[in-house]
Amino acid sequence: MATAEKFYDELCDHVRKTQYLQSTSALLEWDQETKLPATGRGYRSEQITFLAGEIHHRKTDPRVGELLNELADSDLAAEPNSPTGAVIRNLKQDFDKQVKLPKSLVEQLAFAASNGQRVWVEARKNNDFNSFQPALEETFRLKREQADAIGFEDCRYDALLDDFEPGAKTQEVADVLEGLRKELVPLVAAIVDSGVKPSVEILQRHFPVDAQRAFGLEAASQIGFDFDRGRLDVTHHPFCTEMGPDDCRITTRYDEQFFNSAFFGTLHEAGHGIYEQGLPGNAYGLPTGQYCSLGIHESQSRLWENLVGRSRPFWEHFFPKAKTHFPGALGDVSQDTFYKAVNAVNPSLIRVEADEATYNLHIIIRFELERELLDETLSVADLPVAWNEKYESMLGIVPPTDSDGVMQDVHWSAGLVGYFPTYSLGNLYASQMFVAAENELGDLGSMFGAGEFQPLKDWLNSKVHVFGKRFLSPELGMQVTGKPLSHGDLLEHLHGKLSPIYGF
Amino acid sequence: MATAEKFYDELCDHVRKTQYLQSTSALLEWDQETKLPATGRGYRSEQITFLAGEIHHRKTDPRVGELLNELADSDLAAEPNSPTGAVIRNLKQDFDKQVKLPKSLVEQLAFAASNGQRVWVEARKNNDFNSFQPALEETFRLKREQADAIGFEDCRYDALLDDFEPGAKTQEVADVLEGLRKELVPLVAAIVDSGVKPSVEILQRHFPVDAQRAFGLEAASQIGFDFDRGRLDVTHHPFCTEMGPDDCRITTRYDEQFFNSAFFGTLHEAGHGIYEQGLPGNAYGLPTGQYCSLGIHESQSRLWENLVGRSRPFWEHFFPKAKTHFPGALGDVSQDTFYKAVNAVNPSLIRVEADEATYNLHIIIRFELERELLDETLSVADLPVAWNEKYESMLGIVPPTDSDGVMQDVHWSAGLVGYFPTYSLGNLYASQMFVAAENELGDLGSMFGAGEFQPLKDWLNSKVHVFGKRFLSPELGMQVTGKPLSHGDLLEHLHGKLSPIYGF
Repeated sequence: MATAEKFYDELCDHVRKTQYLQSTSALLEWDQETKLPATGRGYRSEQITFLAGEIHHRKTDPRVGELLNELADSDLAAEPNSPTGAVIRNLKQDFDKQVKLPKSLVEQLAFAASNGQRVWVEARKNNDFNSFQPALEETFRLKREQADAIGFEDCRYDALLDDFEPGAKTQEVADVLEGLRKELVPLVAAIVDSGVKPSVEILQRHFPVDAQRAFGLEAASQIGFDFDRGRLDVTHHPFCTEMGPDDCRITTRYDEQFFNSAFFGTLHEAGHGIYEQGLPGNAYGLPTGQYCSLGIHESQSRLWENLVGRSRPFWEHFFPKAKTHFPGALGDVSQDTFYKAVNAVNPSLIRVEADEATYNLHIIIRFELERELLDETLSVADLPVAWNEKYESMLGIVPPTDSDGVMQDVHWSAGLVGYFPTYSLGNLYASQMFVAAENELGDLGSMFGAGEFQPLKDWLNSKVHVFGKRFLSPELGMQVTGKPLSHGDLLEHLHGKLSPIYGF
Repeated sequence: MATAEKFYDELCDHVRKTQYLQSTSALLEWDQETKLPATGRGYRSEQITFLAGEIHHRKTDPRVGELLNELADSDLAAEPNSPTGAVIRNLKQDFDKQVKLPKSLVEQLAFAASNGQRVWVEARKNNDFNSFQPALEETFRLKREQADAIGFEDCRYDALLDDFEPGAKTQEVADVLEGLRKELVPLVAAIVDSGVKPSVEILQRHFPVDAQRAFGLEAASQIGFDFDRGRLDVTHHPFCTEMGPDDCRITTRYDEQFFNSAFFGTLHEAGHGIYEQGLPGNAYGLPTGQYCSLGIHESQSRLWENLVGRSRPFWEHFFPKAKTHFPGALGDVSQDTFYKAVNAVNPSLIRVEADEATYNLHIIIRFELERELLDETLSVADLPVAWNEKYESMLGIVPPTDSDGVMQDVHWSAGLVGYFPTYSLGNLYASQMFVAAENELGDLGSMFGAGEFQPLKDWLNSKVHVFGKRFLSPELGMQVTGKPLSHGDLLEHLHGKLSPIYGF
């Protein structure tokens, strides 16, 4: 074997072993949200903290630096987007970043994340922002320390955003979201002004949990989530995680008085799961076996949730089944009424339950606030007021409680700062990818109407999933859709769907 | 701080961190049996294997050896049963043993255990011993290698037994079990010859799973298992595990056509759990926060399962509740009939469902066979025949299938060789402890009849649990019961209970 190949194998072996710890930590976290007795959370935080330190120790092993140096000028690294080149490029970036972070900071961040979630759960339950404030202050203090240790050119936020959307710049993202906001606000205004109100009451009837679970499993399975390689459980805040190449777990929550929450949540997480399950299993643990970016990840979940799951043909296929699962709630409802209800646009409080049109306004609010918190132009103590002011100005509503306002999301409590904008990037990528898929595959709607989702899933497998982290998200987006990221396709989709419903 | 104390703190800190990995591995294993998608088992084996190597690496860290040397002559080690002395003594024994085991062997053992269970599950399902044989051969090959690496004076089995019953010798255990066997065989014969047959049909009626679960939770909770610090789940093979000082998890399995399986299984595992929950939480990760031996562990489970759970006063309290949970099955059954049924003695195939009298014969069979396998006087290929022969000669029955014969237990597949005799040691300790408790606390039966189990639990907490691993099991037994281990109390208990039922 040539020397470079030996180095490369040693590097990959090291990284795959680190992944054993990372996937184990994923289990510790999944278990914390699904099964752990509440009194066990203190020790669990210590376990996760310790593992974070061990993972960091392995990631910053000087041998990794040596191997990366040896490989820098080798043939294996010559093509940065080739399988070996992408592995080396990504690992180099990760190593260079990790060595800037002291192990103590990594452990403090892990502890703050695990502990912060614990505090958040209680504070949210009691609608008591004051009890959450110290933990949140500590998190933002540590995130500033993290950003400063990593370094940045333009703004602190860049250093954190890069963890979720590699290579992305805050200003670029802000520009894209500003373009989106400018078109969304009049669209939402036109909808509100139309005076049309789809009958959403039908979604607030009684939907028994068992039937919701059965219907969700059926739909998730049919769009392509493989339950032989995954599971569905219940958590307070839904998520998708993987802890092995054949072990992807999604979660949801059931509200017996609201259909959308679990059903579209399950489709959403199944979309994430389909991406994870479509990554190359033989590269598990290597960058080529990892998702490209959170924006791309979110494109997959939002594509299945909204572009597929809220489409008319989807319900041509699934509405008769829904009636079978929920004869009490939907027996007297027509397919058209139901379709309009699940697509109703209504400025509302909770991001994860927001409609397709207003959703991105929720994101823009968070994106603005977390930048201010990071720059200390806003204090954590003033956050609830700032939150409520933005909701009033952008969505025209004021949260009645902090639990349904500033404390509704887990992210900040878990140290996820710089994460929120990837949701909107995902929406934009999703609509562009959907247009590209339709251009290549023909009329997707007629497939959905016949219950055929495999062609779209296969297309995403071959165009997006199979590449792992070989390309940066804008490169992958260009390759899949033939155009740079913008809001055109999303707006066209929204107009095309909503103007017939609202008659504007 | 004095130098010795600094060394001691450093040692404890190291060991507590190792425990983070061990308790994490416990979660990986619990999850494997309860939640893991079947296709995820291959990668899970790799994770567990990797962690086993890391744990071994920490346990054999030369710094541990240095610290132990520094502490050997210190005041902290002067009293071997004092809290600090016991920590140092146990860690020294563990270190001396671990350094004899190459990391590669430790990893092979971990992989064989995880993989072996996977193969066993399938082989048992298909009643196909041939497909299990290679894995079992590999396990025994590795266990021989392990025993030889550790070294022994009298026999190879000593080296493995020590892992489960520290300090115990094979010959001593064999002598105790032989004394037990000599009295059990005529007892069982007298029962069979009596011609009396309690009406066990009533236990084979329909017992819905939900009601079984509710009743099991109620009983486990009432005897003292704290569900705020634990959970109950379903697995193929019941067990108890802990993954933190406040996170103890027990499992059971439900058979709708047989009452005993889940109910007494739940009491049994709850007994283990009460021990774990009674260990000093502030010493978690240190030997003083760990169970004394598996024999003592089993004494706690068998005490609650049999000496409490199969007693007449227990059912005075619980039988009316049982009738409420199972009106269909037990509506027409009297308390006396029920009491006799759950105490019926009947030579049978399955160890975990065996009655109090024949149970130990199941253990003696396994103890004999695993010694022969380890010494290579019996080959794995010949094991099924040898198993069936022993069942015929000792219990008078021949398993119709290997699934209900040689493949019924998980232990060997999981590399647990030297474990089985601790079940019988547990039965012996349990009956001796129960006698001691009654001497000190007065009539336990009248307490049970009134639903009061707290006095016995508190007594066990203060006499057994609180000491962790400060004493070897014979020392602890002597301290608690005032006499050396023997079969007298167990036989007296069995005669006292069974002669009125069987009239001999």
